[in-house]
Amino acid sequence: MLRLFYAPNSCALASHIALVEAGANYETVRLDLDAGDQRKSDYLAVNPNGRVPALMTDGGILTETPAILAFIAQSYPQKRLAPLDDLFAFAQVQAFNSYLCSTLHIAHAHRMRGYRWAADPAAIAEMQRKVPQSVSECYALVEHKMFKGPWVMGAAYTICDPYLFTFAQWLEADGVDPARLPKVSEHRRRMSERAQVRKAIAEELQ
Amino acid sequence: MLRLFYAPNSCALASHIALVEAGANYETVRLDLDAGDQRKSDYLAVNPNGRVPALMTDGGILTETPAILAFIAQSYPQKRLAPLDDLFAFAQVQAFNSYLCSTLHIAHAHRMRGYRWAADPAAIAEMQRKVPQSVSECYALVEHKMFKGPWVMGAAYTICDPYLFTFAQWLEADGVDPARLPKVSEHRRRMSERAQVRKAIAEELQ
Repeated sequence: MLRLFYAPNSCALASHIALVEAGANYETVRLDLDAGDQRKSDYLAVNPNGRVPALMTDGGILTETPAILAFIAQSYPQKRLAPLDDLFAFAQVQAFNSYLCSTLHIAHAHRMRGYRWAADPAAIAEMQRKVPQSVSECYALVEHKMFKGPWVMGAAYTICDPYLFTFAQWLEADGVDPARLPKVSEHRRRMSERAQVRKAIAEELQ
Repeated sequence: MLRLFYAPNSCALASHIALVEAGANYETVRLDLDAGDQRKSDYLAVNPNGRVPALMTDGGILTETPAILAFIAQSYPQKRLAPLDDLFAFAQVQAFNSYLCSTLHIAHAHRMRGYRWAADPAAIAEMQRKVPQSVSECYALVEHKMFKGPWVMGAAYTICDPYLFTFAQWLEADGVDPARLPKVSEHRRRMSERAQVRKAIAEELQ
């Protein structure tokens, strides 16, 4: 039995969707970030970094979305959630997810988590002011250089798709104009109608 | 023939060391970041994100250090640079490298690349002031929660080792006290004496 530690409206949704796509046997544990659940000792025993998601497996606990997504894809190879038999194609999946994790998500995080990188409220406000520009630049790269269509990696649905979809939920809140991102926007719409995605979202809203 | 695009004193050193460890047939292309090589059109054709490293392979171009490192490990399985036969252990490698990429490297990047996330010079200076604290917190997690010893993942040397070593080169410049990180410091010393590491560094200094 896998156990996913998540918070609503967090990047944990990507792993949640992947678990549904895989047909995995899993349960979820909800954290309330506003209440500080992620800094309480019982959760720090799960993930000392105090962030979601974390995935409890039979072998131990995994953190970091790109690692969790690849683990799910490799654990359910028959679901073909990644091109496991093609080293270069698999590496491209990893590269895309790493870009989302280390560049796009970080640009976004300066809107609500600026305290991680500065103490002064004026500096934190200044970071927030740049978010629409910096996040838009990240999405422009995705739209024009990375997205192959109809799925992120081309003809096949992969673990890149729930990850991009998860971040695309926040476009408007980040001050990004979806009209300038027709591929990303159409992908978001199509993903939002996908049964597996609806199931994961419904479970988080319960 | 693999071709690694790198800049001296950048995180590309991790991929460079991994290529040496793998015994790969490769050549290197040096970029001068101060001269803006990474924003010139010929390099943007290689990596539209304008960052190093990038690895040109027979299949195409790869970016993002965690993806490049895993690709090298998978391409030279006989070198055992990652536990490829153990899904959970491989995911732990990926998780560690993802943490370095998306949390530790980002904390560090606020010292010299603050302009990515704010325009105002006062805010950028304010970010720099927090770097010693935020980077120290990242290393404390590595030291006390993640590092297994003698190598990052325990008995076996993996692609986590060159990546941690690369960042650990910058401890003092980031205002982190190495004396508080005995495991990380001893690992850095041991890595710096390793023949493959010395070879990669020597190639970058030529």
